[in-house]
Amino acid sequence: MATIKDVARIAGVSASTASRALHDSDMISEATKERVRRAMEELDYSPNYSAQNLVNRTTNTIGIVLPVRESQDSLGNNPFFMQIIQGISSVCSENDYMVNLASGRTDDELRKNCQALIRSGNISKFIFLYSRKDDPVFDFVKKQKKVSCVVVGSSYEKKTQKSVQFVDNDNYQAGRDVADFMLKKGYEHLVFAYTDMNELVQTERYQGCSDYLKEQQKEGLSLSFSRVKEEENILKLQTFLANHPKTQAFIACDDIMAIRLQRLFKNSRLHKNYAVISFNNSLITEIANPALTSVDIFPYQLGEKAAQLLLEKSKKSKVQKVIIPHKIIERESTKIDEL
Amino acid sequence: MATIKDVARIAGVSASTASRALHDSDMISEATKERVRRAMEELDYSPNYSAQNLVNRTTNTIGIVLPVRESQDSLGNNPFFMQIIQGISSVCSENDYMVNLASGRTDDELRKNCQALIRSGNISKFIFLYSRKDDPVFDFVKKQKKVSCVVVGSSYEKKTQKSVQFVDNDNYQAGRDVADFMLKKGYEHLVFAYTDMNELVQTERYQGCSDYLKEQQKEGLSLSFSRVKEEENILKLQTFLANHPKTQAFIACDDIMAIRLQRLFKNSRLHKNYAVISFNNSLITEIANPALTSVDIFPYQLGEKAAQLLLEKSKKSKVQKVIIPHKIIERESTKIDEL
Repeated sequence: MATIKDVARIAGVSASTASRALHDSDMISEATKERVRRAMEELDYSPNYSAQNLVNRTTNTIGIVLPVRESQDSLGNNPFFMQIIQGISSVCSENDYMVNLASGRTDDELRKNCQALIRSGNISKFIFLYSRKDDPVFDFVKKQKKVSCVVVGSSYEKKTQKSVQFVDNDNYQAGRDVADFMLKKGYEHLVFAYTDMNELVQTERYQGCSDYLKEQQKEGLSLSFSRVKEEENILKLQTFLANHPKTQAFIACDDIMAIRLQRLFKNSRLHKNYAVISFNNSLITEIANPALTSVDIFPYQLGEKAAQLLLEKSKKSKVQKVIIPHKIIERESTKIDEL
Repeated sequence: MATIKDVARIAGVSASTASRALHDSDMISEATKERVRRAMEELDYSPNYSAQNLVNRTTNTIGIVLPVRESQDSLGNNPFFMQIIQGISSVCSENDYMVNLASGRTDDELRKNCQALIRSGNISKFIFLYSRKDDPVFDFVKKQKKVSCVVVGSSYEKKTQKSVQFVDNDNYQAGRDVADFMLKKGYEHLVFAYTDMNELVQTERYQGCSDYLKEQQKEGLSLSFSRVKEEENILKLQTFLANHPKTQAFIACDDIMAIRLQRLFKNSRLHKNYAVISFNNSLITEIANPALTSVDIFPYQLGEKAAQLLLEKSKKSKVQKVIIPHKIIERESTKIDEL
């Protein structure tokens, strides 16, 4: 098995230089780093993390914190966790970092697992794959010494915290863009369909839509649906449409809500077709009937960026929040003729 | 921060006894282990894995190997990866094991990442979340000394390998059960809809259906669909139904195929309704229109069992393959009247 000494010999540098190059030290020139990288490639060398950990008292490991299993909803409704994780993994593997998972069935279990990671492998870098108000796990982790965190999601806190950074889409702007898209398509009587305004993502998207429509002096109504009670939803929709016969289109808070709407349309035996646009652009948008126009939020990039922030060396120009752009993907659900 | 010595003092045992209890040694009585556990609980003690690694030359870490990102299909079509991972994590956290992820964009990158995990943290226990024929990554990992693997999925190899175990559903039996269920519901003219018979899961499910129907002297046809070409699929379905007007119901190889079928029914402007049953019972079955009868394959349990197998101490009664039961969940899609 190749050692760092073999790498140094092939690269024609000292072992300590090779080691510094491997750790991307500022003391080593780019040219030397490139020579060392090529030697590593040639020898198929992979660093021995354990030995490094002993020396540095730190591990080349990022901890990914998953939401607790109790909140099944956030798990089930988030079809892009795997893509975020893949994005994180990709950046970590490029930087010789390992990826560790922390999960738990309850807040308490998850907190303990995070604690074990911090104490054990001296893991000091964490990515939270969720953002929850007053989360005891997040509060615990960010308070630990020398620990830095990146959260994929919205910031609930107004106060700036040096140890925490956020990666997110601009859900408010996405809401505005969706409203603009629909107006330009000729749909003027729009309804925002949602399930829970306590979820910051839904609120932000709604607020964006609502503000934009107001600015354009258009009507912007909203209607909440149950995640389970189908009969109740049918009645609600029928009553709403009877009271608002001009309704032309729905803006669904996410893909799941959009599919639920399409089903409600059918089961409510409506005499008119409605356009639908949604957010997230998950796999189900393509097999929906009709296929859904939806806002792609680029989960793979969210993961990549979160890992990049955490691995950045210089703390000087530390940004508090990074926004990943979004993009509307047009499909059949916004090509409804019967206006 | 509490140390193992503090735990030993509180429990009234020696430090070495406490350490053995912590590692669930056979030399320590259950009563002593319980005392040590209570002391750990009291002190909120969590073991220092790094120190242990130095002593044991091994880590309390399981490596989870994800499919390469290139095969987007297996990722996208597998809405239950997260549930499998949660199942694995849950068992690991109960046993003070950490969970590490290995992923890659290509086979080569994934192999290198696995190699780094083996060399670095001396990780010797791996769970593969996929099963592919002639997989260079799997072939590499299982050949390493002292490495043991559990694969969540089907075994492609006839030859028994001591270092590898499999956790899977009995897809063949699930196929038989689905055919039996449909016959009992009164559907006699059945069609198996699939996308790719090179995928072992699809073949096994089809073979189960087909064998059972033959035994019952019923017709068992099959029809392949494209994952992308909608127009081609519509034509194919229309032609098929024109040639087989008696067709009553479809058995879809998975939930995604079932949703695709429901959409094809609508877009092919058929004059008859068809029952549909599918496999996987993912989130989309409930929001499908009509809601899909589907076979639950219990992904959380698949993950739990995979981790349990890997952490089992005794190698004597090592089983080659563990089957997680399946269960048909009945919904509206198999309550179609118009036969």
